[in-house]
Amino acid sequence: MYDSKKLDELRQGHEKWEETTLHQNMARLPERKPEFITESSEPINRLYTPLDVAELDYLNDLGMPGEYPYTRGVHPTLHRSKLWTMRMFAGFGTAEETNTRFKYLLDQGQTGLSVAFDLPTLMGYDTDEPEALGEFGKCGVAISSLKDMEILFDGIPLDKVSTSMTINSPAAIIWAMYVATAEKQGIRPDQLRGTLQNDILKEYIAQKEYIFPPEPSMRLVTDTIEYGTHTLPLWNTISISGYHIREAGSTAAQELAFTLADGLEYVRWGLARGLDIDDFAPRLSFFFNAHNDFFEEIAKYRAARRIWAREMRETFGAKSPRSWLMRFHTQTAGVSLTAQQPENNIVRVAIQALAAVLGGTQSLHTNSMDEALALPSEHAVTVALRTQQIIAEESGVANTIDPLGGSFFVEALTNKIEQQAYDYFRRIEDLGGMLPSIDKGFFQSEISDAAYRHQRELDQSIRHIVGVNAYADKKPITIPILEMDPQGYTRQVNRLNEVRQTRDQAAVGQALDHLRLACQGTENTMPHILDAVRTYATLGEIVDVMREAFGTYEEPTWI
Amino acid sequence: MYDSKKLDELRQGHEKWEETTLHQNMARLPERKPEFITESSEPINRLYTPLDVAELDYLNDLGMPGEYPYTRGVHPTLHRSKLWTMRMFAGFGTAEETNTRFKYLLDQGQTGLSVAFDLPTLMGYDTDEPEALGEFGKCGVAISSLKDMEILFDGIPLDKVSTSMTINSPAAIIWAMYVATAEKQGIRPDQLRGTLQNDILKEYIAQKEYIFPPEPSMRLVTDTIEYGTHTLPLWNTISISGYHIREAGSTAAQELAFTLADGLEYVRWGLARGLDIDDFAPRLSFFFNAHNDFFEEIAKYRAARRIWAREMRETFGAKSPRSWLMRFHTQTAGVSLTAQQPENNIVRVAIQALAAVLGGTQSLHTNSMDEALALPSEHAVTVALRTQQIIAEESGVANTIDPLGGSFFVEALTNKIEQQAYDYFRRIEDLGGMLPSIDKGFFQSEISDAAYRHQRELDQSIRHIVGVNAYADKKPITIPILEMDPQGYTRQVNRLNEVRQTRDQAAVGQALDHLRLACQGTENTMPHILDAVRTYATLGEIVDVMREAFGTYEEPTWI
Repeated sequence: MYDSKKLDELRQGHEKWEETTLHQNMARLPERKPEFITESSEPINRLYTPLDVAELDYLNDLGMPGEYPYTRGVHPTLHRSKLWTMRMFAGFGTAEETNTRFKYLLDQGQTGLSVAFDLPTLMGYDTDEPEALGEFGKCGVAISSLKDMEILFDGIPLDKVSTSMTINSPAAIIWAMYVATAEKQGIRPDQLRGTLQNDILKEYIAQKEYIFPPEPSMRLVTDTIEYGTHTLPLWNTISISGYHIREAGSTAAQELAFTLADGLEYVRWGLARGLDIDDFAPRLSFFFNAHNDFFEEIAKYRAARRIWAREMRETFGAKSPRSWLMRFHTQTAGVSLTAQQPENNIVRVAIQALAAVLGGTQSLHTNSMDEALALPSEHAVTVALRTQQIIAEESGVANTIDPLGGSFFVEALTNKIEQQAYDYFRRIEDLGGMLPSIDKGFFQSEISDAAYRHQRELDQSIRHIVGVNAYADKKPITIPILEMDPQGYTRQVNRLNEVRQTRDQAAVGQALDHLRLACQGTENTMPHILDAVRTYATLGEIVDVMREAFGTYEEPTWI
Repeated sequence: MYDSKKLDELRQGHEKWEETTLHQNMARLPERKPEFITESSEPINRLYTPLDVAELDYLNDLGMPGEYPYTRGVHPTLHRSKLWTMRMFAGFGTAEETNTRFKYLLDQGQTGLSVAFDLPTLMGYDTDEPEALGEFGKCGVAISSLKDMEILFDGIPLDKVSTSMTINSPAAIIWAMYVATAEKQGIRPDQLRGTLQNDILKEYIAQKEYIFPPEPSMRLVTDTIEYGTHTLPLWNTISISGYHIREAGSTAAQELAFTLADGLEYVRWGLARGLDIDDFAPRLSFFFNAHNDFFEEIAKYRAARRIWAREMRETFGAKSPRSWLMRFHTQTAGVSLTAQQPENNIVRVAIQALAAVLGGTQSLHTNSMDEALALPSEHAVTVALRTQQIIAEESGVANTIDPLGGSFFVEALTNKIEQQAYDYFRRIEDLGGMLPSIDKGFFQSEISDAAYRHQRELDQSIRHIVGVNAYADKKPITIPILEMDPQGYTRQVNRLNEVRQTRDQAAVGQALDHLRLACQGTENTMPHILDAVRTYATLGEIVDVMREAFGTYEEPTWI
């Protein structure tokens, strides 16, 4: 988009600068390091000028916000019309404790709910199953039956909030419990707004919380896409998640590439089910990490929108602009938090959150300063929420759309990360696609190489973490730590026993039988799961039926 | 620098976007406010594109870093060669307490010292004078004689650190004490590195800590410029300070304009003294505020460099590039801190500090979270220093120079704030220059209008401060608060008495007599001030001599 004569002049000016000013100064005051790299170990140039983005074409490559290819944002007025949803990921102990926290957060100005489930729930076990032992309520709330879900949302009108649920392998069951809870509140499914994580591919790639093998898991996801498309039109059926890929140690480019590749795979399965892309693609949403490297993250979000728009329109032929536009939630990088000097985490989170907002996020979770030590205390989570409110109300960054658009550096970085994502797409295709690439351990090996390189850079002090391998001290930590209700486990187990004793056993048995048949066949499982949860069949019981039908997954051993 | 055909295409694309996408969306989802404004109440457009910077010429308007007009930075490798100096403004109670804090900060990785003096010292009173009552050690350290200065820097080799001293009306005296302390350490003046604030003009404009009238005050400043030029070539003789102008409630544009106007006035006085501009201009440094509005602040720093370079080269005909380049220290905005929810201040400071770094600062103070409540505790000041270290080590923003260069928004904002500064220069000229403008209350009235508008926006809830007029709560504050040594005042007064009793009274009398003559005449006062402090004449005694010669200043009453 630059005038070619001006570019020539600049090229000469740049050369002259290198030969004179730069040369003389480097002799006098050399740079601190031989190479400057990002959090993802990508080298960064000393200076970016129009020469680095000479090929950029405004209308084709950036466009107007709310228009293809959406590089500058998915909406023409973005945060001027609607601030991102402030959505704190929360959950611990029993449904009662988490319900109290939800109400506290809404009272503090949070604008959406986000449920963290405990490990047994994530793995499809009831609290009282032996596999659940010792993990109750630790990384989230325990939900074993519809009864728990009813308590979790007690007093929270589900037609008024949007709720995100971070659940994957048993996603359909938890979603069904949410729909059934809404029914009890007198709210129809088509009134429900929210997001189900439901991204099983990234479990095989990074997070490892899978139950069933990839094929039946993908079938379950496709069931939920189909069901949501027809029955919950305001619900985001999947939150295609780079977050956990990044937390596992990937680079920003890997996070971007693998997440988009996952998204494209869900599209293929939806199409194979016979759905019209423009019916279900608008309800695919994304979830990215906001890591330390300020500009690398912003470039990642901008590239993500452009790639998704191009792929949906050009490769898959989607006709509706709503299918092209990538909406995403962001969470600051849990892995970047340190147990040492916990207030430093407030600083990290503020910078990470600012990057997410400048990258045009639709929704944001900010981590609490104490998350490397314990579950977030009420005080710590309040500071984390205030961080978003200060960005929204005081920093002025929501006044204009894509404030970094046009920056020589940010545009060059956006192009580069986009290119790296396409390189990965080609490699995945060469391996035969997503499931074969998982099977061959491709993603896991790429991520572990990146994590190893990062660790080596830390060990060699090429990279510093403040308070850890630089500026460390031995001062005691003084922030307050959350204590869970010591009676929680007993209360939860008692409730579960009571549910099992008081429900209509025949109805439970019948619903589970129907579900079994659906799993064995090709019928959509969602209506049967919903019937089962309505009878108070427990999470563990439903998963048992599915496990029987689908088998379980063991990760292959790669040499 | 854009291709004109491309600009035409963009113009059409922009119009089409406004008529279609934007129009439809505004009908469906209007913007949250009728106008979006910065911290300085400047309206911000919804979107910036190349159309907003169509006139920008890369080589003329931005240039290469380390080259005229320095918009992108004063050094060709900037923070890749040398990180900004991490310089925490510190001082409280007695010299002993502050000396301990200095050593603690250096131990924590601080890279420069910055002395805060108490109000009596700033106003030229000894601790035991009646005018000093009740103000000992509250906003900084009390320094009444060379003895206190020797203790303040005990064990800190003055040829190894760079020291900034925030002192104005009695700046020459405090500087002389520093030079004399260095002598006692066996260090020559030409080895000393640091900065004297010594910016009396902004006292009349905003801070109001003046003693003498403007004319003799400017003569004293010029004496220090002349003395420094010949004797302390590594010392920044003035730190021309927008900080206090901003803290008094000015806009960003006023901060920029009035500070640069002050700087240009010091240049005129230096020239009138017969100095060569290229001998003294390289040692003029600047000091800006880093306030809440992220992009407005970054634009301010970039515009500041460009204007200063142009004025020095074009208006004053400076030949040396070192005269053209503006180096500046930054402090985050004290006025933005809240007593409520003090951890919120960590967030504010992190964002403000990030703006300063992205704006290319040479030196940075980050405020402590507790500064709206008390003097910074050791814990709070450590978090504030860690904030800088995290930006330096973890955020990646120091990897490249002027990362925002080229952003349509940032470049447009840089142009706008530059234009606003030139508008103010013209108005000051129309009023007859700096001293007549001070005399007419011009600056004070402009600042108070801005402060009033800001307050009205708060009162009308057009503007929100998190924890104050939004998201307030009544929770008790739990952070620890610094307690000063209760014996400090007595120790300081005893020391002062002992100094007065044990010194050579005849030598004191003689030195003060010589100084009196110099003040009454035109001889440079600095050598005589230095002689006086060497005899342990106190601050108050020296100021008394000057007050007698120069008179005192009372602000005129403007209707």
